[in-house]
Amino acid sequence: MRIDMADTHDFARGAAFLGTGGGGDPYIGRLLLQQALRKSPAARVLSVDELDDDALVVPIAGMGAPTVIVEKIVGFGEGERALRALERRLGRKATAIMSAEIGGLNALYPVAIATHLGLPVVDADGMGRAFPELQMVSFNIFGQSSAPMAMADEHGDVVLIESDNNLRVERLARPLIVPMGGLCMLALYPMSGRAVKQCAIRDTLSLALGIGRAIGNARAEQRDPFESLFAHLRTTEYYRHCRLLFDGKIVDLKRETLRGWAIGHAIIERFADGQRLEVTFRNEYLRARSDGRTLAIVPDLISILDRETAEPITTEGLKYGQRVRVVGASVPPIMRSERALEVWGPRAFGFDEPFVAIEESA
Amino acid sequence: MRIDMADTHDFARGAAFLGTGGGGDPYIGRLLLQQALRKSPAARVLSVDELDDDALVVPIAGMGAPTVIVEKIVGFGEGERALRALERRLGRKATAIMSAEIGGLNALYPVAIATHLGLPVVDADGMGRAFPELQMVSFNIFGQSSAPMAMADEHGDVVLIESDNNLRVERLARPLIVPMGGLCMLALYPMSGRAVKQCAIRDTLSLALGIGRAIGNARAEQRDPFESLFAHLRTTEYYRHCRLLFDGKIVDLKRETLRGWAIGHAIIERFADGQRLEVTFRNEYLRARSDGRTLAIVPDLISILDRETAEPITTEGLKYGQRVRVVGASVPPIMRSERALEVWGPRAFGFDEPFVAIEESA
Repeated sequence: MRIDMADTHDFARGAAFLGTGGGGDPYIGRLLLQQALRKSPAARVLSVDELDDDALVVPIAGMGAPTVIVEKIVGFGEGERALRALERRLGRKATAIMSAEIGGLNALYPVAIATHLGLPVVDADGMGRAFPELQMVSFNIFGQSSAPMAMADEHGDVVLIESDNNLRVERLARPLIVPMGGLCMLALYPMSGRAVKQCAIRDTLSLALGIGRAIGNARAEQRDPFESLFAHLRTTEYYRHCRLLFDGKIVDLKRETLRGWAIGHAIIERFADGQRLEVTFRNEYLRARSDGRTLAIVPDLISILDRETAEPITTEGLKYGQRVRVVGASVPPIMRSERALEVWGPRAFGFDEPFVAIEESA
Repeated sequence: MRIDMADTHDFARGAAFLGTGGGGDPYIGRLLLQQALRKSPAARVLSVDELDDDALVVPIAGMGAPTVIVEKIVGFGEGERALRALERRLGRKATAIMSAEIGGLNALYPVAIATHLGLPVVDADGMGRAFPELQMVSFNIFGQSSAPMAMADEHGDVVLIESDNNLRVERLARPLIVPMGGLCMLALYPMSGRAVKQCAIRDTLSLALGIGRAIGNARAEQRDPFESLFAHLRTTEYYRHCRLLFDGKIVDLKRETLRGWAIGHAIIERFADGQRLEVTFRNEYLRARSDGRTLAIVPDLISILDRETAEPITTEGLKYGQRVRVVGASVPPIMRSERALEVWGPRAFGFDEPFVAIEESA
């Protein structure tokens, strides 16, 4: 598979949908990908099965508050410094790059920097969506170590963290976000090709591209982009349980940048009957709740889209008065196992309720 | 020079005096030094002139809040992990250990761990006292880089920071103190013997031992320990301007652990006339002020000592009702240069007043 200049808008749109509000602004990621593709005609995407067992695969990701990502443009320097610091520590060069999360900037940046550096990128990630913490990743669930992990900021500073506990890596890294200017790039979870085959969420770059295309093509052909989106999601193995959760206008919005996260909620009022939906977020949309009932909750996907164009809206793109549709979709079974829900289920985010699959909450 | 078991109490006491309230509890440091000396009969102390120009000298220091240091006992593991991580990064073994600050734990720990590891320790430090931030050190003033710097905690986690800006290293390291449990050990400012000759504050281990002995011997011989202390300080080149600033009882005490520091003030009431002295601290005692007049201010030394025994009292050892004497002493001219005062003078601590030398404020 290849991703070329003609794919960039669709890929960014699909990544924004899977980012469920977070993952960092896909606009910046798209610009970086386009910049890389001006020098190199296409990104080389390897399927998981094409990886050598002994390949060294390095996920690269941004860490920080989405509110900062839209104001502070990240470049290739930060990602390259993080990668080089990790390679130096490992005494070995990366043979392929991977996304840690297939959401927003974090879906696009790895493809962009791999192309910039002349490396292939793996068609997979560790979340099948976006999540706000470093241990919320399938690599962790399958016992891979996030460390050694390198963090690089735009000042040229690099921090290398070593720990055998992925939750501690998150706790050590998080307070560094503020002195690193609200955003930094990470190289983490260095893995063999063998490990990637065991623990990655497969084919998610392809899925993002397909989702973005379903919306984009419908618009170009003046068909309903939501119908096209749902029809396409139903053809995928991962996201096939999907539905419109709500249709209305944003009437209240609370958003704070706290400890390097964008934390808050949006209240959406339905046109038909004035009924309200509350969407809670921490970088990502985590729970959609109306009339005392949860309609969708992590790890299932909640995306807020422009009501006309079906363009996904990130948490920092939300505005008072915006007319939106809220869409929910399932995640693959690998992401709903008991062990997985301990890491990224409702209780991991402080919600005092169990996970209920979206296909069962209708 | 050697430091052996018979010296440990005097050395710890002198280090506590030069620690001016901070530098970490010398009691813990003394226990560690005694532990090391039970296996190895004496610590091997090299004068700066004995260093090879090409020696690799590594300062080791604790970073954290003194309030934590008294409750969480640090061991050799943390310091050794920090040192090994730095050595691995540099691709070279340390040939000698040094103190970054000749105060409290940070004076004693390097001697203890050097002895534990079979390495010599240099008779010098980077402050001639203690200070609460990593860039407040003569190595920085003379242009040495604090990075690469390794930090290790008791969980086994290690963080390596790379930056060409020493103030940024401080800003990156400080927020890590909390997830590292309030205290961690650092290996930083790796330097050649040549660089140490240029920028270290020399002979401060010997000075600490001499100060502690002056107090200890007077007590043993039932002489006035304060007279003995002053008489001894006047024989030293560095601390020869010294005097009693205040004699009274602690009547108010405010102490908080904020962002990994112990921050607050003590109010001392004079027995004779009820006049009050305010001593402001951030880990270390920074300013002594009475009746609208500053009696002593950083970088000059302010120590609070038990009124009978002249035992130095750290910020975390202060208690309401304690009867104390407050002593001030000069620091060497190298520490009062314009460039040095920019780094550790009153304004570096947020005081809106210039430095006035203690010999001029009487």
